[in-house]
Amino acid sequence: MTRSELIQQIKAKRSFLCIGLDTDIDQLPPHLLDSEDPVFEFNRQIIAATADLCVAYKPNVAFYESRGIAGWKSLQKTWEALPKDCLRIADAKRGDIGNTAKRYAQAFFDQETSGLGFDAITIAPYMGHDSVQPFLEFEGKWGIVLALTSNAGGLDFQTIPNGDGVQLFEQIIQKTNTWGSIGNLMYVVGATRGEAFATIRKHAPDHFLLVPGVGAQGGSLSDVCKYGMNADCGLLVNATRSIIYASKGKDFAEKARQEALALQQEMEGELLASGIL
Amino acid sequence: MTRSELIQQIKAKRSFLCIGLDTDIDQLPPHLLDSEDPVFEFNRQIIAATADLCVAYKPNVAFYESRGIAGWKSLQKTWEALPKDCLRIADAKRGDIGNTAKRYAQAFFDQETSGLGFDAITIAPYMGHDSVQPFLEFEGKWGIVLALTSNAGGLDFQTIPNGDGVQLFEQIIQKTNTWGSIGNLMYVVGATRGEAFATIRKHAPDHFLLVPGVGAQGGSLSDVCKYGMNADCGLLVNATRSIIYASKGKDFAEKARQEALALQQEMEGELLASGIL
Repeated sequence: MTRSELIQQIKAKRSFLCIGLDTDIDQLPPHLLDSEDPVFEFNRQIIAATADLCVAYKPNVAFYESRGIAGWKSLQKTWEALPKDCLRIADAKRGDIGNTAKRYAQAFFDQETSGLGFDAITIAPYMGHDSVQPFLEFEGKWGIVLALTSNAGGLDFQTIPNGDGVQLFEQIIQKTNTWGSIGNLMYVVGATRGEAFATIRKHAPDHFLLVPGVGAQGGSLSDVCKYGMNADCGLLVNATRSIIYASKGKDFAEKARQEALALQQEMEGELLASGIL
Repeated sequence: MTRSELIQQIKAKRSFLCIGLDTDIDQLPPHLLDSEDPVFEFNRQIIAATADLCVAYKPNVAFYESRGIAGWKSLQKTWEALPKDCLRIADAKRGDIGNTAKRYAQAFFDQETSGLGFDAITIAPYMGHDSVQPFLEFEGKWGIVLALTSNAGGLDFQTIPNGDGVQLFEQIIQKTNTWGSIGNLMYVVGATRGEAFATIRKHAPDHFLLVPGVGAQGGSLSDVCKYGMNADCGLLVNATRSIIYASKGKDFAEKARQEALALQQEMEGELLASGIL
């Protein structure tokens, strides 16, 4: 999916919502546990209930990988069920030396070798250029580099300043954005980081940002928009637990839709207020 | 495997060799391609030919994941074939927020949920404490945190000094070694980093270091030992391509053994010279 197609989707759906599919087999509605593949069945119903309200889905690979081969099968089927008009993000946080990074890129981008053809993948930047570049070489795909993450540990190393007072996450943005373009590179910035969005926008005014941490993690959508939105929206705001675990009853998909709808409506308000719609 | 068991293995085998199983389906000896699972068959023969010469094996997960479900099956069978007297390292470089890191830990450590029960996993530290801690909470398992890696991109961010001149990889060691102990935490340090081992040893005198980069990447074993060896050896030196791809003929396993033997003998010399044997 190209940048302009993504913007088109945001305008058409009046939403910049990404729904995380961190589907935890221990948290599924009990009535699904008799299905052949409960995790996939859960995802299938969540997707059917929310596809018109979001522009991206983001399966978190750990929740599949933790179930070994069975989990990898659930991931495969989930990928096949993701609508093509949504950006399909593999939240994998991979990063390794060049020849290995190339294989990770194939794992998530190259349907012929792996069976999976995601549009985007999250990337850990610690190993530098050759660990990021192979993802950016795939035509029509996106690399989403960790910048400032939403978790408590995000402050352990990411905000360390160098001798000139430039924090590590800023240096990572400064350097990585010479490796890719606004058409194939995004950054992860946690919704819990509020005013840091202004700092991010100094270094990456035009890039899209993938923003987890709204909902269960406590980030504020209005703060994210206030400091992070640009003229093309430039935001994909992710919610996971507040949507997919809104109910553990038979109404889980309906309740998920209600939560997604509430967020979509709030986002529509932000898009209208900023003149994007 | 505990630290004392690992040291015992090093003394018994007179070796601190780790063999990387970055098994690339495009580089296999052609005669194996008719096997039901050529990647597993290759690994099986490499392991049989080298198990008495090394103390660790390190499958690189990317090379399995890139083949999707089929690759995950090869990884599963490979894990089952790894000898229990070797440290079984999943080279996965995972790292994510706490609840997700816990799932990654299950994926590689918890045989009941995933089918895999590796002894150790490589971890990317960028996301901080809660991304590392879940791996260290598994009894009898090891987390191996990236410190200073062997690739060119390793110098992009890892050596950035803070205002006091302390480089990022040093800060990572200083902080992470308060999270674990010498009994469950190691560091990745590239063999190509020569004298940096002295700096590493300032911060982590007693930890084991996993050292890739000898062989195809050009690192020097004698430099690694000169600056990095401690009284318990404290090194697991990895070689991959120079061993597993020593020949692409029917003699690939025999040639792999020859290469592994040459390294083992060099290591034995280092262990003798340092008085560990």
